Amino acid sequence: MKILVSNDDGIDSNGLHVLVKYLKEISEVTVVAPLKEQSAVGHAITMQIPLRVINYFKNGDFFGYAVDGTPADCVKMGIRNLMKEPPDLVVSGINHGSNTAINIIYSGTVSAAREAAIMDVPSIAISVTNHAVKNFEFAGKVAKILALELHQKKVPNGTLLNVNVPDVPEEMIAGILVTKQGKSKWDDIYEQRIDPYGRNYYWLTGNLIEVDKEIQTDQAAIKNNYVSVTPIHFDLTDYETYEKLKEWKLERLFDAKNT
Amino acid sequence: MKILVSNDDGIDSNGLHVLVKYLKEISEVTVVAPLKEQSAVGHAITMQIPLRVINYFKNGDFFGYAVDGTPADCVKMGIRNLMKEPPDLVVSGINHGSNTAINIIYSGTVSAAREAAIMDVPSIAISVTNHAVKNFEFAGKVAKILALELHQKKVPNGTLLNVNVPDVPEEMIAGILVTKQGKSKWDDIYEQRIDPYGRNYYWLTGNLIEVDKEIQTDQAAIKNNYVSVTPIHFDLTDYETYEKLKEWKLERLFDAKNT
Repeated sequence: MKILVSNDDGIDSNGLHVLVKYLKEISEVTVVAPLKEQSAVGHAITMQIPLRVINYFKNGDFFGYAVDGTPADCVKMGIRNLMKEPPDLVVSGINHGSNTAINIIYSGTVSAAREAAIMDVPSIAISVTNHAVKNFEFAGKVAKILALELHQKKVPNGTLLNVNVPDVPEEMIAGILVTKQGKSKWDDIYEQRIDPYGRNYYWLTGNLIEVDKEIQTDQAAIKNNYVSVTPIHFDLTDYETYEKLKEWKLERLFDAKNT
Repeated sequence: MKILVSNDDGIDSNGLHVLVKYLKEISEVTVVAPLKEQSAVGHAITMQIPLRVINYFKNGDFFGYAVDGTPADCVKMGIRNLMKEPPDLVVSGINHGSNTAINIIYSGTVSAAREAAIMDVPSIAISVTNHAVKNFEFAGKVAKILALELHQKKVPNGTLLNVNVPDVPEEMIAGILVTKQGKSKWDDIYEQRIDPYGRNYYWLTGNLIEVDKEIQTDQAAIKNNYVSVTPIHFDLTDYETYEKLKEWKLERLFDAKNT
């Protein structure tokens, strides 16, 4: 099995190095990761400036390719230019900090996996639920187990698995659950400060309003110490509203305009 | 009606100024738009550096707020800090270049509208299907008509209308269609060049592979000169795969590991 590994924390982040260690036990790994941290970049791609690719060494050995772009850039560049043939799987992570509920929308980790799904390559995004996480070992094992499973079973092209691992000792893990994206959202606050020159600037902060109670949602699952596995896709159509909107008969607005 | 207007082309772009002109006929408009062009930034938000807000003047009059961040930053900052009360509607655009099919994922224009939907404010993203578009007038009228309609009828919170307007003379417009997100994708090509110092760099280019034939998809609708209106949401769960994944019985993998 050939696996492309990327992330959004950058090629020198510990979570990525642990992930590579575990995936090398089952596959040939190619690392293509951002040169610099790319958290919360969403599904950005670089088009206004060209990209650079740098060979990244670890302890004197070639470790992977560093791209001075976004996670989605890394996956595109890896699959199109850097690998001789497309990988069997893309794994993005291990992120420090959960990617559940609304955070999926902003996540660079998830966007790398989603770019793979768009390119018809099965993929996994994996995160540990604590920004200050120190131990990625259990999440590394989970990535390895799920990579093997996904390679055997397949999900439909265009779907990726978004995995969140609670940051608790392994013996406290309650199990694993297939989940839906939760509805918890941020109550954003812009903290206003004044720079040494008397001008305002603003830091985005806020509190996550946890509304998810059902255990089969990502946010509730991790709160209850379950590993959460959410299948997500990139068809954003709201089919329920699609049917409703047709009943609005929008065409009458254009007829009216001509009378 | 109070409308917040944003975009991804920047506060000095022509498409935004035409949009404001038409929406002012029906509402009180607040402009909060990026200081610089933010195409293809996806749903990026700014967290690593603070934001600045600048008062932007046009012909000596206050026109709106320029934020040195992403489209999603503008909408968050506009609703949380700059407007006295949340707007009734957010309209993002008018973008030069279509936002159909897979482009929705990368689009800054759509991410501004999506951020509004996340914040429970109804929203519209509007684009004209040509990067070199010169005349935004018809799209401006469409935005005005749909803004009034959406304000009256309401869609569920969390859904936005993604509108694409063909860049043809108004008399050639075939009508308006409610559509689904298409499946057309890019065949990406990284064009390799060599800089004056002998180092490689890469430009992302490519061709859109148009696979959408059904007229009720965004890409097919605009090709046939219809205004396309697609309801999209931010619940990314793939419910079909969710049901299938439960049958995989992932919990057996964790039991096996302990034996």
